[in-house]
Order: sequence, then structure tokens, then C-alpha cells
Amino acid sequence: MSSASMTSREACVARDSAHPLHGLRDRFVLPEGIIYLDGNSLGPMPRAAAGILNRTIEQEWGQDLIRSWNSAGWFEMPLQLGDRVGALMGAAPGQTVVCDTTSINLYKAIHAAIGLRPDRDVVIAEGDSFPTDLYIVEGAIKSAGRPMKRRLIGVDGPAIEALLDRNVAVVVLSHVNYRTGELLDMAAITKKIHDAGALVVWDLCHSIGVVEIEFDRQAIDFAVGCTYKYLNGGPGSPAFIAVAKPHQAEAQHPLSGWWGHAAPFAFDRDFRPDAGIKRFLCGTQPIISLRGVEVALEAMDGVAVAALRQKSLALTELFMTRVSALLPVLEIVTPRQPSLRGSQVGIAFDRGYAVVQAMIERGVIGDFRAPDLMRFGFAPLYVRFQDVWDAAEILTDCINAEVWREPRFNRQLGVT
Amino acid sequence: MSSASMTSREACVARDSAHPLHGLRDRFVLPEGIIYLDGNSLGPMPRAAAGILNRTIEQEWGQDLIRSWNSAGWFEMPLQLGDRVGALMGAAPGQTVVCDTTSINLYKAIHAAIGLRPDRDVVIAEGDSFPTDLYIVEGAIKSAGRPMKRRLIGVDGPAIEALLDRNVAVVVLSHVNYRTGELLDMAAITKKIHDAGALVVWDLCHSIGVVEIEFDRQAIDFAVGCTYKYLNGGPGSPAFIAVAKPHQAEAQHPLSGWWGHAAPFAFDRDFRPDAGIKRFLCGTQPIISLRGVEVALEAMDGVAVAALRQKSLALTELFMTRVSALLPVLEIVTPRQPSLRGSQVGIAFDRGYAVVQAMIERGVIGDFRAPDLMRFGFAPLYVRFQDVWDAAEILTDCINAEVWREPRFNRQLGVT
Repeated sequence: MSSASMTSREACVARDSAHPLHGLRDRFVLPEGIIYLDGNSLGPMPRAAAGILNRTIEQEWGQDLIRSWNSAGWFEMPLQLGDRVGALMGAAPGQTVVCDTTSINLYKAIHAAIGLRPDRDVVIAEGDSFPTDLYIVEGAIKSAGRPMKRRLIGVDGPAIEALLDRNVAVVVLSHVNYRTGELLDMAAITKKIHDAGALVVWDLCHSIGVVEIEFDRQAIDFAVGCTYKYLNGGPGSPAFIAVAKPHQAEAQHPLSGWWGHAAPFAFDRDFRPDAGIKRFLCGTQPIISLRGVEVALEAMDGVAVAALRQKSLALTELFMTRVSALLPVLEIVTPRQPSLRGSQVGIAFDRGYAVVQAMIERGVIGDFRAPDLMRFGFAPLYVRFQDVWDAAEILTDCINAEVWREPRFNRQLGVT
Repeated sequence: MSSASMTSREACVARDSAHPLHGLRDRFVLPEGIIYLDGNSLGPMPRAAAGILNRTIEQEWGQDLIRSWNSAGWFEMPLQLGDRVGALMGAAPGQTVVCDTTSINLYKAIHAAIGLRPDRDVVIAEGDSFPTDLYIVEGAIKSAGRPMKRRLIGVDGPAIEALLDRNVAVVVLSHVNYRTGELLDMAAITKKIHDAGALVVWDLCHSIGVVEIEFDRQAIDFAVGCTYKYLNGGPGSPAFIAVAKPHQAEAQHPLSGWWGHAAPFAFDRDFRPDAGIKRFLCGTQPIISLRGVEVALEAMDGVAVAALRQKSLALTELFMTRVSALLPVLEIVTPRQPSLRGSQVGIAFDRGYAVVQAMIERGVIGDFRAPDLMRFGFAPLYVRFQDVWDAAEILTDCINAEVWREPRFNRQLGVT
């Protein structure tokens, strides 16, 4: 049953109960009366989280203390969790670690890529990527040890083809655009980049866990991403970095901390990187937050990304269809073609800030990105078709009621 | 009453009950039957931690979701906690942030220092510092953008005076040596370094919270350290970095992530660092682990570092006095002179590994550093004089019983 047949709330409710992924929603805590469409920013808490994190806090830290580094497996977590994240993106074990932040992992990846292409001096980035990617490209270039240039593609810049020549060392791309929700064709673009002799770093922040990724099959060089959006690892939970096996022995980065050493407890005086993916670790990781990632991955146990992707597309399609029908004047910036769409829908609207605030008051949590973008994320693990139906109705009500006339919806309370 | 008068267990018990810091022990969970002398590696759990972290997990994450970035103050935590850590080391507000790991913060600090001394090409580090400091100096040098050299002082190398010339950009020093427990004279050494026109980065991992530090008064340039040892922030809790106000506007580092931007939510295309200490932030922090730091700092509320220092010295003095009396043959590598000592005692003993294991079996948790060092940390917040007395007795028993003859004490179970 495609979303085309969901022409009533009842049909949506029926679709929800019949959906093969329906039971997964129970694995998460979703506050009463809330339709949560911001899982693309911070995923909700897995039901098991409170108990397991409490055990980590009270038993592992509180009772077992320093011994937990061994007895509770703390040392192994970055690798073990890395392999599990890798499995969600088609990366064989030994290529992914969970650690640090997306920004820092991106820094490592860009450095390593630049080092692998010593006779090239251009790093391509997207003008409309999440800005930290652009900033980190700047930082990596400044510290590359040789003159490098940043070149921007997209939006006001040229297309990638116009810049891809033998000077390009690495291209940094977001799999899904954080604003528009546009999904890039990873296979085709990666091939183009490889054909030009360059390497690619994919930022998977907005695709990991909801879009199928073939890291090994498409011979992706590097990938980074966060674990707190569709992976539901908790606020600020550590990020991940994946480095293709064939690059690992030569891939170097300057964040050469002891966790990346071949023998961290030999206390050698000189840095000798681990032969494999561990060289992309740096310092001691925040164990309690790291345990949140483990709980979250367990909440996805037995769930195929392909099934999540299918439901995600049906959810976003239904939302766009309903919004277009109810408010034909609204500008949906997200592509209608499924192969070009991630798991979120963006709507450009000049009074969007107030609309998002008003929707939150009515229990629908989305978010707003300046200057005029309303963003709604549809996480297939727990968002239902009936939620989509209701959210479109409430959006319509808010706009028809011209909520921006209410002063309380225009207070800027900081930003999320 | 100095430790000289504590010549019996009863005298120690009496001293404990009369001690002005005695009540602080109740703020921590200490497992029944354990004498915990490894707080220099991982501090114990503050009694309030389980409840407050649980609220962060269940209410802030679970119920309030994305809204907690504002409503629960998540955005402000790195700065607010930074100011509180700063207060423990004599740094006025606006100079310290809690974020990332010690290794990564060290990388930022060394980079910034190198940038502030553009006509100098030497970074001095200590040959016997915790190795990650040496490795990070290597990484920072490689990525400095101009040819730089690492020069080592101490152990087999020369003294700092022999190398301090007009070529030195920055000196990286550990306030307390992680092995020997030796405390450097921060005021005198900083002055020497400044007289030579160089900058200093102090690694405070083994001194923050137990040794008085005068960041502002001694015009320290940079400091970094962890929060999971004597600050008791929890396993792998985020680290800190302090940058003196006068340097901030010019201090640059290449980990230029969005949290360091002057306007992170303006989503500018180019990096423009915050004017102040926020430029040393990079990416989204692990909030649950960060909350652990907050709880831990609250457990130190109203406690003067001077009082902690005084008790710490009495504890280590008592331990060394007792061990020397019971086992005169043992080589204590930690200085007897109080002004040269941190809050830990190291004993070199070739069968040290087995002895530490046997002591753990008897409830005294210390640790071992290859090749032959037994390390015992004495955290004045919760270690009692009676614990010191008992630990010295148990150490003596284990050595007299030649526990290394027992195979079970020689199994290498990994390392902590």
C-alpha cells in the first residue's frame, strides 16, 4: 500500500497497525501527546537506555570503578560499536570506530585523504553543506603542511564536474543535505571522484540509519557521521569515522593521541600508529555517553536498513502529498523523487520560525533553520503514518490561523 | 597534628573523625570493603551522580528531547563548567571550557602557542611525560604549517635551562609526573619560560583538584587536563582547556568546528572564530558525560583546594613514612619533600604487577605502570588516614608473603 492510498486518518491508522515495523516504536520513549519530527536532530531515548545507563553509572563506575576498563569492556567500546555502526552502512568489521565528534573525525579524514594524494592541492566542499564541514575543511587545509585550496560546489558555485580535475585530492560531501533533505547519488558521484583520481569523504550525519549505504561495495574511502540523530545515541553521543581497509596503513592524521598508538600501554616515547582503524582513535572516550550509543544500536537489532528506508520514503511522501494538497502555495524544498530524498522534509516559509513554535505548542516538534526553513524529520523507527497525517493538519491550522501574529511565537529563545 | 604523630591505627581513626574534611567522604560512593587508591586514574562516583544523571537521561533526553538544548542549559555547559574548573585553578571566568579530550585540547593549545610565536621553531616536551603529550606534540608539529622540532627534556635529556633559547615557541609540561608523582615548581618554571620569550602549556591531569594552581597570578598561557581523576567526573568525562585572556583574540587552532564560531547558528560559509574562549570549542559535546562533570564539581562545593592540598600531603607523607618503616628496602620514587610532591606515591618494585593484583584481591585498589611501578593515589576528598595505615600494612603483607609466587597474580588481564 503506497501513501497514495492513505487518504484519511483512518487509513493511516490502519496502515500503522499493519506495518511490519510497527512494533519498533515500543522500543522508544515518546512523551505523551508529542509528535516528534526532530529525530533528525536528536533521536528519542530508547526504552532500555535508562536502565542500562544506570547500570553503567551505579555498577560499573560506582562499584567496579577502575576495574571496569577491563571487566565492563570499556576499552573495546569504540571498536565494537564501530563495527556495529559499520554494519548499518555496509562496511565490513575493522573499518569503523565510534569516538570524538563529527567535526573532529572529519578533520582526521580530510587530513588522511590529503596525505594520500600528496601531489594534489584542492579540497572540494559543498557551499551548502552543514557549515562545520566547511570550517573543518578550512582548518584541515591550514594545517595540511603544504599549500592547499578549498573550492566550493553547489548553490552559487559550479557543479562538481566543473572542478574535478587532477588537482583535486579529496571531495567532502553530505549524503543528505541538512536543509533541503536532498540525497546525493553516492555511487555515481563516488565513481566520478575516483575516476578523477581523487578520494571522497562522505558525511553521513543525515543518512546513517535511514538510508542504505554501500561503503564496501562502492569503495567509499572515508565516512563520518554522528550517532545522535537517526541512531538515537543520546545528546552529543560520540560520532564515528570509517576508513576503507586499503587506505588504513597509509592514512595519517595529526591527532596522534595514545589511543591511536599501536601499543598504548607500552608508553613509548614516539608515536607509532596502530596498523588498523584504531589509529583513528585519539584520547579517552566519554564512556557513559558511549554506552548510550550501544543501547541505541541494540534498539535497532534485527532491523534491516532497507525496510527503514522504505518506510521513511512512504512517510515523507505522505507528508509532502498532504501538505501540497492542504497548502498548495507552500514551497517544499525537498525533492519529490524518492531517489533524491533523505528522511526529512524542508519547507521554505518566511514566517516559518513562528509556525514551528506554534506547532511545538500543539505537540508537533520540528525545527527551524534560518532564514526561513521549517524542517521535519521522519524517523521510521517510531514515527507513524497517523503522526504524519496529524502533523500536516496542524501545520495547516497554524498557517491558516496566521500564528505569526501572536507575539509569543516570535520570541527567539536561542536555537536548536 | 602532623602524620608524625599517627603511630597507630587508632591515632589514624581519631585523626579521621577530627579532620575538618571528614564529612566530604559521604559525598561519594565507595564500595564496601574497598580502599580506593586509584582516584588518580578514575575518581569514584559522587553520591548525587546516579540521581542527577538519571534526570538528565529520563527527563531531559527522554521527555524534553531537543528542547533541552535550551531549557536544560545544554548549550551553556562547556562554558559554565569551564568557569567552575577555572575557579579550582585560580583562573577568572571566561578562560576555561570543558570539552573533548585532554589529547585534543593539548593539540589546540600547542597549535595556538606555535601560532603566537611565529618566528620560533622549537617545542619542548618532557621525555617522561604521559606519552600522549609527546605524541600530540608530534602531531601538532607535523601540522603546524612550518618546520618545527620537538626537543625533549628530563630523564635522559637535558634540563629545561639547557634548551630554553630564542628558538623555543612553547614548552609542554606536566604539573605532576604521572609515574613518580613529582610536582614541578610551576611559578619558577613558568617565569623561566616567559623570560626566554616562550609560552607554556601546563598539563594539569594529575594536579587539578588536589594542588593549588595560580593560573592568573602566574600568568599561565595555556592549561589542559582531564576531569575524571581527582575531579571525579566519571569514566572518560570531557576534558578542559584554559587559555589566558590576553592570548584569546590571537590564539588560533585548526579544529575550527561550528561550536567555536562567533555565531554558530548563523550558518556562515566561512569560519570566524568567537572572540573569546568559545573559539576553543569544536563540535557537539557528550551531554550525559558532561553532566557527570557538573555533579562532580558540585560535590566539591565549598571545599578549598588549599585544604585538600594540606590533607593530601599528610596522606602521602603518612603512607611513605609507614612503608619506609615496614619495608625499608623498597624504593619510593616520589619526592619526600612536600613542595615536590603531587597526590600520589610511586614505588618501583620488579614484582610490582603481582603485588598490585594481590592487594586488589585484599581490597586495596592501586595500579601498575610498566615496567615496575606501583602507583597509589591519595584523594583527600574521601581517602582516610586509617585507609593509608591499612594499605601500608596490606602492601607489606603481600610483599612479605611473596605473592608473585602465586600464578593467579601474574595473569596479565589487560591494562588499566
